[in-house]
This record gives sequence, structure tokens and C-alpha cells, in this order.
Amino acid sequence: MAGSSLGNIFRITTWGESHGAALGVVIDGCPAGLSLGLSDIQAYLDRRKPGQTKISTPRKEDDAAEILSGTFEGRTTGTPISILVRNTSQRSGDYGEIADCYRPGHADYTFDAKYGFRDYRGGGRSSGRETIGRVAAGAVAARLLDECGIRLTAYTKSIGPISVNMDKFDRQAILTTPTCMPDTEASVQAESYLADCMRSYDSAGGVIECVISGVPAGLGDPVFEKLDAALAKAVMSIGAVKAVEIGDGVEAASRRGSENNDPFRVRDGEIVKTSNHAGGILGGISDGSDIILRAHIKPTPSIFSSQKTVNRQGEEIDLAIKGRHDPVIVPRAVVVVESMAAITIADALLMGAGARLESLKKIYGR
Amino acid sequence: MAGSSLGNIFRITTWGESHGAALGVVIDGCPAGLSLGLSDIQAYLDRRKPGQTKISTPRKEDDAAEILSGTFEGRTTGTPISILVRNTSQRSGDYGEIADCYRPGHADYTFDAKYGFRDYRGGGRSSGRETIGRVAAGAVAARLLDECGIRLTAYTKSIGPISVNMDKFDRQAILTTPTCMPDTEASVQAESYLADCMRSYDSAGGVIECVISGVPAGLGDPVFEKLDAALAKAVMSIGAVKAVEIGDGVEAASRRGSENNDPFRVRDGEIVKTSNHAGGILGGISDGSDIILRAHIKPTPSIFSSQKTVNRQGEEIDLAIKGRHDPVIVPRAVVVVESMAAITIADALLMGAGARLESLKKIYGR
Amino acid sequence: MAGSSLGNIFRITTWGESHGAALGVVIDGCPAGLSLGLSDIQAYLDRRKPGQTKISTPRKEDDAAEILSGTFEGRTTGTPISILVRNTSQRSGDYGEIADCYRPGHADYTFDAKYGFRDYRGGGRSSGRETIGRVAAGAVAARLLDECGIRLTAYTKSIGPISVNMDKFDRQAILTTPTCMPDTEASVQAESYLADCMRSYDSAGGVIECVISGVPAGLGDPVFEKLDAALAKAVMSIGAVKAVEIGDGVEAASRRGSENNDPFRVRDGEIVKTSNHAGGILGGISDGSDIILRAHIKPTPSIFSSQKTVNRQGEEIDLAIKGRHDPVIVPRAVVVVESMAAITIADALLMGAGARLESLKKIYGR
Amino acid sequence: MAGSSLGNIFRITTWGESHGAALGVVIDGCPAGLSLGLSDIQAYLDRRKPGQTKISTPRKEDDAAEILSGTFEGRTTGTPISILVRNTSQRSGDYGEIADCYRPGHADYTFDAKYGFRDYRGGGRSSGRETIGRVAAGAVAARLLDECGIRLTAYTKSIGPISVNMDKFDRQAILTTPTCMPDTEASVQAESYLADCMRSYDSAGGVIECVISGVPAGLGDPVFEKLDAALAKAVMSIGAVKAVEIGDGVEAASRRGSENNDPFRVRDGEIVKTSNHAGGILGGISDGSDIILRAHIKPTPSIFSSQKTVNRQGEEIDLAIKGRHDPVIVPRAVVVVESMAAITIADALLMGAGARLESLKKIYGR
Repeated sequence: MAGSSLGNIFRITTWGESHGAALGVVIDGCPAGLSLGLSDIQAYLDRRKPGQTKISTPRKEDDAAEILSGTFEGRTTGTPISILVRNTSQRSGDYGEIADCYRPGHADYTFDAKYGFRDYRGGGRSSGRETIGRVAAGAVAARLLDECGIRLTAYTKSIGPISVNMDKFDRQAILTTPTCMPDTEASVQAESYLADCMRSYDSAGGVIECVISGVPAGLGDPVFEKLDAALAKAVMSIGAVKAVEIGDGVEAASRRGSENNDPFRVRDGEIVKTSNHAGGILGGISDGSDIILRAHIKPTPSIFSSQKTVNRQGEEIDLAIKGRHDPVIVPRAVVVVESMAAITIADALLMGAGARLESLKKIYGR
Repeated sequence: MAGSSLGNIFRITTWGESHGAALGVVIDGCPAGLSLGLSDIQAYLDRRKPGQTKISTPRKEDDAAEILSGTFEGRTTGTPISILVRNTSQRSGDYGEIADCYRPGHADYTFDAKYGFRDYRGGGRSSGRETIGRVAAGAVAARLLDECGIRLTAYTKSIGPISVNMDKFDRQAILTTPTCMPDTEASVQAESYLADCMRSYDSAGGVIECVISGVPAGLGDPVFEKLDAALAKAVMSIGAVKAVEIGDGVEAASRRGSENNDPFRVRDGEIVKTSNHAGGILGGISDGSDIILRAHIKPTPSIFSSQKTVNRQGEEIDLAIKGRHDPVIVPRAVVVVESMAAITIADALLMGAGARLESLKKIYGR
Repeated sequence: MAGSSLGNIFRITTWGESHGAALGVVIDGCPAGLSLGLSDIQAYLDRRKPGQTKISTPRKEDDAAEILSGTFEGRTTGTPISILVRNTSQRSGDYGEIADCYRPGHADYTFDAKYGFRDYRGGGRSSGRETIGRVAAGAVAARLLDECGIRLTAYTKSIGPISVNMDKFDRQAILTTPTCMPDTEASVQAESYLADCMRSYDSAGGVIECVISGVPAGLGDPVFEKLDAALAKAVMSIGAVKAVEIGDGVEAASRRGSENNDPFRVRDGEIVKTSNHAGGILGGISDGSDIILRAHIKPTPSIFSSQKTVNRQGEEIDLAIKGRHDPVIVPRAVVVVESMAAITIADALLMGAGARLESLKKIYGR
Repeated sequence: MAGSSLGNIFRITTWGESHGAALGVVIDGCPAGLSLGLSDIQAYLDRRKPGQTKISTPRKEDDAAEILSGTFEGRTTGTPISILVRNTSQRSGDYGEIADCYRPGHADYTFDAKYGFRDYRGGGRSSGRETIGRVAAGAVAARLLDECGIRLTAYTKSIGPISVNMDKFDRQAILTTPTCMPDTEASVQAESYLADCMRSYDSAGGVIECVISGVPAGLGDPVFEKLDAALAKAVMSIGAVKAVEIGDGVEAASRRGSENNDPFRVRDGEIVKTSNHAGGILGGISDGSDIILRAHIKPTPSIFSSQKTVNRQGEEIDLAIKGRHDPVIVPRAVVVVESMAAITIADALLMGAGARLESLKKIYGR
């Protein structure tokens, strides 16, 4: 319980169900004086909006945000920022038939096991629409980081068997391809793969990568609040994520130390690493290199072919899911991963502000 | 800062440096009435003790624990359990030479960047010895889980290129092989691989898997406190872990939905899954199947061949590390992964106790 | 920062400014299965609504609540309950003149000192309207406590020099007198005293008492999370509260031990205290007697006589406050004190659910 | 449960029982670079040490502290500071007789109600010795505050009916009188009153005041983390405290607004208040004036005259307490109140470091 908040100082609390009246987020602890407007929020929300391409659910939602508190004359005041998005396209009728049964790969059974009953309409709180609050908060975090010279870039790295060719990396393509891949060729192949999935009433997964640049060395804490640990939690808390890697991740485990260590050198008077296997974090603390992470996303569990499952009465049944579902979650999850990373870095920035006596004295003019 | 605590109700706080007077942990929130003795703690600590095999550091430490509070007449009282381990084999002289330089793959540079200076002796707080507190707490958590019918089994899944054959799974071997592999044949091959690494002044990484059985369906929370998110944070917070997978993890991303969904069926009146790609967690909540996770561990950064790096004065130097170091961290980290998983599940058990009004009434007899 | 949340498991987050679009609260961690409707919330909000009597501000607000999430078919689902109240009677014009000056007894100066600027309209986040979120959450907590046999009764104990005669205690009068005093005679005297204050452009303070009955022995924790400590924080966090007492409070300090100790006896097979100087809490843990606390409220700082103060430019000025203000805050704060107490007890109930191994086993059927 | 930690960034965790092996504290989140030695800690601990005067328990304890981690070459490193004090004068035999009975005014009954059993030796975790960890942490917090120009002065304001005459305030007397009163005449009278209490096998309570000067305006947060709310919790969490006042406290409730508001003026280019009824906090945020608080302490519950109570078997008995007990807790609690205030202010200082975007940029050089 009480699991709807994240962060220590930059602290977000999301709420809302897929087919309830609205969804939203409260962002507490954002520093005062940050320029912030509705368009900053809306630009992020639009990146996760459904109904925009052939490979996302045809459910149409405006997902129009309203800022209810925490800003004054275009700047944050230091008090909680409450952001609300009304649900407008509920078609609960679609879900009546599954009110009573446990969809494979979904949280229907586990919600019932935990709470005794559930809001079954569209998955309720376990719906992907829950990420609206995350993305609205991510937009605020990204604004704060931008002021501090920190920028995030997330993109689809692969869908099913189709991977991006990083030599053809095209930042613009992230926002223009329906797959959010930074490689238009790979994107075309992925679309074709997805079309094939849809024809066979099936779905696909994929991998999202996020690069965070401009992070000063020294963010994050030793032990349990390591920056990579906080990132892993934030990213793994996105529904459908089944693995998180930092830097070379899984590959590091089969390497030798001499291959995996990143040498330090001096460039223009700054200490830098000449490689970045570590992904920008050493001992849980940022080292000044780009922070690099990957989220592995399972295929959409809602598929239209028949599946074996059980209903609330404990009877074995065959289930054919109807409704409106994405054949792949990955493209719409790109901005969610970026948002969770931004929120985590923003909190680390604030938590670390008084790490040294000398910075504390500087702030308070003592 | 303040990153040395983990958990909400079952809450641990570790402290101590590699070459300080002692290391320890305070475990707050453990329920009263649990039978707990020093031998329960020591058995866990002995599994991570150095100097036991050819493939671990020759530094000899007794790592003898003392329970200073929180138990009375052999049972926990509900008050904080403080456990202390004195350091006895400090040879700080070994480290004098690196006081001033930044070892590649270590946290020397990042600690300096964060705090302005550091306790350089043996890595200080970023040393592997920091895990002593985690393992002592893990022993307490495992005792609690055991009373609730929950058991954890962690083991080495691979070292460098050598992987366990799961068809030859031998639980006993986990405690008897120097690699903690559950497959004696693979273990012999891994030892040979490690001997080769050592001959070339190099080191190796590997993969640890942990299986948690007997977890009731319904543990963990939706959204940010998903059970898999909490596990990812706990495991990623172990130094040297670079990736965490739940269930099929990385592999799930390249599968189709029809391959990845686990059907529900009824067996002996219980709802069960007939496969377990999900690794025992759906929507962040346990589903009653085994929880399965993997930690990918980087090769030991302390290698004895010469490396390029920089010192505190910003001069480029060649560094040859001396001292006592494990050629592979994996075998000694097995019990650390198991401990972090146990601590996380114990907290989820306590956090979820009042998830339903009816359980709350039951507890308070209302 | 990040100070807008309270509680560990039953955790509330409030947001909103006096003259912003809306105010609200997110209640996370409420157990599933609790019957809860809009009327439960509205009944509490109506008790703090302005414009109802001669002794409250003439500002008229409907304070109509909307439940946006967390309930389904009339019951809580265990997911966050988001409650919203739109502001409808903003007259910011009234406040333009004080945008630039520091009202004595208000938070204008301290907000500027902390954040560099502030939303000055109606006090922004430091306005009494901030308590709307607290009261909405208090209504939910009270519903939960009611199911567990715990009832709260708060009332005005004194206004200025006029105190209630507890021998004439009339529970009904709390809801019918404009002062919320449980003694109609004292209430008439207090109204007369307040009329006098208003004639001299002045204001009054007073004391609120809250009695919580039916609390099982064993709630609260030793050390920092003592139940009285948590109550003290919750109640002192209400703007204008300057002192909090538990049980005999201030009077206990001048007594002797033999006068202050409460003897234990047995009544109908139950261990009870024959007096209750302690106010229902011993060593930070509830003892089964009524919990009794008092909040001392300062006089409304907004007075209409001229006051010496300073403006943002650091110039000394004379200030005559205009606008709509309560001559006394106490009656409208009664339900706020009751709400804060309810929220605190609800959290203690949930935090303590697993205090003993045997209760934990009972919940999970192990 | 899990109630043994306090603070958000400057976070302390205490542990230990009266008659266990040792007591201690872990202080996490203290900034790096603070000069700190054992003598800083010991000086504070010596102020609460028993056996020093006729009016404190004859139990003799050295209370010698050991710093086990977190400092290096005389300075804090930013990692957790673990401090340990061994118990040396346990005489558990004294307590055998009360193992089975519930002492009035003590936590024996409530611990049993909560946990099912208890460590009865000397009150276990509910003993006054629990404050050792608080005071050791308070010493560290006071060191940090001192570097930032913040100083705390706590003293006994009254014992039983004897109050200090503030016109005769003598700071030196706080450390030299056995009562910790800043007025030697009042102290002599209080000693005489206490002698009378002891002759009649009785005990006394009293009031402690704490003044915190040099606090910059802008510390603390609106809403739930108001600085006065945090102080109230910290101080009320000390066993035996029954009321907490800020500024004029209880008296404010019977005043008029025109008497209670503090005018702002300009002195030497600084905005100041010309009176300080508010006690240095407005809207939960420090205003730059002295912060003033008072703790009201109940009389020692351990009295040597016969009392009516009940034993664990539910039988009514007459109890005559033996052992070694203070006739008044107040003088030894003075440093505890000062410590809790210091810890709270230190945390507020760290929490507020990034309240404005401009300070955040300053710290990170952006």
C-alpha cells in the first residue's frame, strides 16, 4: 500500500484509473522559480498519446492537461504542482466481459488476490493510462534538469527481432517514426514485423534505451540510494518492464576486468573516462560521463487470439480479448522511461545539494 | 545522503567502512516473537566470509557477529536489532599508495567528486565489506520468511563464459562448490577459467540467480512500490551489479505475446500458472508462483595488470594495484543477493498486512 | 520541500492555493473494501465551510468535493483516492494591495525568505483553505476508524477568556452552536466576546480538545513514532496552532508522581486505568483509555486595525488589512483537528498490523 | 514498528535497551567535511549522565562513547556515523520483581499489549537510557549548526511549583546547578522542593525551555513539515513530555490578535520583528528571530510509595517500586530536548538547500 509516491525531495504522487473520472499527479518539492507552462507538460503527454499511428490503440484521448496549483505568473512557487487529465473516451462496455476473468499476463488475478476485488474497467489502476501522471511529472523534472544543463534522450532500440543500427543514429527520427526508433530503416522493418504480429492476432516487445548527458559527477549516494539502484526501481516500476541494464549491463558479466574497466584521463583540464562501459555511474555515484540505461519490455499481454485462463469462480475458460489495444507498448513507453529517469535524476540533484559542509554554507551565506 | 537505510516497515540501516573499527546494521520493524539466535546470523555471514577458497581474497576475517539489542530470551522483541562485526585484519598500509589515485572501475573518483575527500583505506564505505550489514539483516529476514513458509535459494548461474546446466541442478553443491554453482561440473570449469584469469592478472564477472518459493499471491503494490521494482532497487544497490532481470527478463523483449503470457489453470482447487515467464510477479504483485530474478555482476575492478588513470592532482599515471582482491566477486555475492531479496520480501509482507479492511479487523479483533 | 505528505501507510498528500483553480488531496494506502461515498466527504467539508455564521468570513464557497479515483461501486479499492474541490469565490482584487507587504502574524515574509517570491493571492498555500485537503482525508480516515470501533469527538474548549463548563457537556451542541462549543451557555458568552473583538477591529484565539475513544491498547511505536509524537506533529502542522497537550499536559509538569500516575485495575476481565491523566498513551503506545489532546490556537492574525510592518522593498509602512476574514479560527478548525487526529490513528493502525509474528501469520494464513 | 528513525536527510536511527549489551545511534546524511571528535560527543553525553548529583539516580554509568564509522582524520566523510555506548552497570536483579507487573505511568502494559511480551529489565527500550543515542546524535547536529552560526540553549524553566526568574538569567548556571536552572536562587529552592518529594517517596515534574538563535529566515516547509510541527514531534517523542509550546504557546490562545501579532521593522538594513510572540516561526517557516519552545515533563513515574496495579496474570496487586530512580527527570532531560531540537534544525537546513532554482544552480556551478 501507499505505493503511489516516488522520490525523497522531488516527490511525485500519481493517482487515477483507466476508466475513472480522471488521472493525475502531484509533484511536491520542485524548487521555486522554475519557468513552467502548460505547453511544457502537454508536449510530453502528446508523446504518449494513443490513437496517433497504426501501431497504437485506436482509443482516442485528448489527454489535455490542466495545472491546478503550484505555479504563479509562469513560474513554480515551491509548493505542490497538481496536474489533472480527464478521461474522455471510456468505453467500459468493452470490458464487461472480462470483469469476471483473469487475463494472462495482466494484473487481474493479483489485484484480486491482494485487495479482494478490483476496478476491472480497462485494467483500473494497472492500466497503461496510469503512466499519464508519470509523464506529466517527467515533463516538470526535465524542465528543471534542462536549467541545470542536463538533457535526456530516450528511444526504441529494438522491437521483436528488429534492432536499430546505432551507426545510423538520427535524433530527429525518434519523434517522427511511429516506432520512436532513431533509424528510419529499422523503423520500417519494425512496422512490417508489427503488421505481421497483428495479422496473427499477436503482439511484440522490445527495448528502450535512455541517455542522460550533462550530469555533474557526484550525484547519487553510496549503499541503498545508489543512482543506478534508484534508476532501476524507477524504470522497473513501469508496467511491462522485465529487465533493466546500466551501461554495458548484461554483457559486462561475461567480460574480463581489463576489458570492462574505463580508464581515467585528463581532457581540457577535466577528469574524464576514455570509455563508458560503466554507463556513467561508479559506486552508485555519477562520474560525469553519459548515464546510459536500457529497459526491456515484454510483449503486450492483450492479444486477440484465444487463451486458456480461469475466472473468479475458479472455472477454467477460453478467453478471447476484445477492445482496443496496442500491438506493441514500446513506442509509447519511450517517453515514460525518459520521464522516470528525469524524475530520479531531479531527486538526486536535490538530495545531494548539502552533501558537503562547504556547499551548505554557500547556500545559506554562512 | 541518508542513503544507508532500506525498507518501509522492515527497515535496515547499515554503517561502517572497510578499515574502520567495525561494520554493522540496525534492523528496525522486525515483528516481535521471532526466534532468533547468533548462529542464525553467523551462518549467513560465514557464506560471504573471505579467505575460504583459492578464488577469494586471502584477507582473513572472522567476521564474528555480536547482537547488541532487540532480542530477549532468544526471541525478537519488536525493537531494533543492532548487529556489530569488528574489523580485525586491517592492513591499511596496502592502500597508502592508492590514497591519491583514482582506480578504474572503483568509486574513488566519484566519492571525491561528491564529498570533496574520502576514507581511501580499502575503499572505505564503497568496499565489498559494506555488505556485511546486508547479510546480517538478510539472515533475520530469512528467519522471518521461513516462519511464513517462504524460502530463498540463490546460486551462481555463470562465471565468465561458463554457465550452469540447469538439468544437473544440485542444491547441495551451492554450499560445497567454491563457485556456489549448483552443478559441480560447471564449477570445475569455472575454477579453471578463473585460474586462467588470475594468471593473466585479470578478473571475471558472472550471473547470480535467486528463486523465492512459497510467496503468497498478493504481495507488493501497484505503481512505484511494485515488488519487482523494489527487488530491482535492492539488488542493483549491490556494488558491481549492472543489470537485473525478473522472470524471463531480457528474453521476454524479443518474444511474442502468445509465447510470453502464462495461462492460468486450476490445480487442487488453487489458481496456478502453467508456465512462469513472468517470474512470479504480475502488475508488480506476487502471483503465487516462484519469484525468479537474476543479477549480472561485473568483473572485479581490482586487477593486478597496469592500468591508465589519473591522480587527485589531475596527473595521468600508470597504476598497478596491489593488496588482496577476489578474482571474481560472484560466489561471495550469492548470499548478498539472497539477503537483499529476503529483506525486500519481508518488507512487502509487513506493508501488505492491512491491505484489506477485513484483514485489519481480523488483527485487531474488531 | 516535499512537505505536503503525511503518514507512512495511510498517507495523504495535499495541494492547492487559496486563489488557484482548485485544492485537493490524494489519500494513498487506504485499505480496500471500505464503504465510502461522496456524502461522507461532504459532511466533513461542510463543517469547515466559510460563510455559515456571523463569526466566520463572509466569503461564500460551496466547497463541493469530487472523488476522482480510488473507489468502485461504493467501496475503496486500495488505490489512491483523489479528491478535488474547485475554488469558486476568488476575489483576488482584495489582495492586490498586500501583494507587496508583509502582514504581521502571516507567512508572507517567511515564504519570500524561503522561495524568493510567493503566490500572494489570499495567502496562497499558507491560507486556511489548505485545510480542505486535510478535512477530506480526515473524513476517509474517520470512516475507516469507525469500522474498527474508533470514534473521535472534537470541540471548542475555550475562546478568548470564555471556557466550556465540562459538567454541562452536550455533544449535540458541538454541531449546532456557531462556536462548536459543547455548552450552549458558554457559546453565547463567547459570541458576545467575539462581537466585542469585531467592534474593536480585533480577533480572538482559543482551545480545541479532541477525544478519541475505542482505540485498542498497543497502537503507536516506541521512540520517534510515539503515538503522542505523531499526534503532536499532525496537530501542530495546522496553521495557527501554538501548543499541543496530551492528557493533563501542562498541568502534569507541576504535579507529583503520586498524583499523576494512573493505577491499573481489572474491570469485567479487562485491564483498565482508574484515572486518565496520561490521556490514553503510555510510552508512546495507546493504553486502551480515551486518547485526549488539546490544540491551542492563536488569534486570527488578519485584523482590521492599523499595524506597523515592512514591504518587499524594505520600507516601513502602516498596514490596514481589508478583505474577508474570520474573527476567530477556532470553530472552523475543530473539524481540522479531528481530521488530523483521525489520519494519525489510521496510520498507526496500519503500521502496527504486523507488530507480532502471530498476527502476521494470521493475516497470511500461515 | 520501524519507529527508531527520525529525519529526512540528517537521519538518525537509535537502538538499545536499558540492560542490554549496549545502546547507540547511526547518524546518516551528515555533510562531509565537518570537524568532529569523540570529545564533542562525550561532552553532550556527560550532561545526561546519571549519578552526578543528589537529585539523580545513584546508578553509575560511564556512558563512554565510541565512534565506529563515518569520520576520517577528524572530519565527517558523509557516510553514516555509528556511535556506541556499552552498558556497564546493569543490576537486573533489581527488576526481577517487576518482570511480571505493570508499573503505573510506565510502558510495561502497553509494550505487552503491542508485542505480546517485553524485555522488562530496567524498562528495556522504554527506559530513559534510550536517550543516549539521541544525545550523541544531538552533539553531531549541534556541531553542524555551530558551523552555520546556529546555537542552542536549553535549561530548566521550572520544577514542580518553583520557576526561574528570567530577569536573573545566568547562562553559566545551566551547567553548574544540579537542576540545570539558569538562576541559582530558584535552583536552591527547587532542590529543597525535591528533597521534600524524596522524603515522601514521591517525585516531581517540570518545564524545559530551549532557545535557538542564529537560524536564517526560510527554514522549514509549509503544510505538514512545518518547522514547529517537526519540533513538536521531536520533543514530544521524548518519554515523559506531555505538552509542547512554541513561542508564547498556551498563552497565545487567550490573547487578541492586536496583542499577539509581531510587527516587522527594519534594523540595520535587515527585516526584523520587534516582538517575538510567535517564537521565531511563521507559517511553519523560520522568520529569523530566536526559535523558542517549551517541553512540559511529567513527574517521574517510578515512586517508592505503594501503588495499586495489576500483574500479567490480571491480578490486582499493591506495588512498591525498588531500584535506582531519579526523583525528577527534568535536569537530565535538558540536553535531550536541546539534542532533539538540534537534530530537527539540522534536517531542515539540509532539506531546504535546494528550495530555490537559483541556489541549486549555485551549488552545482550551473
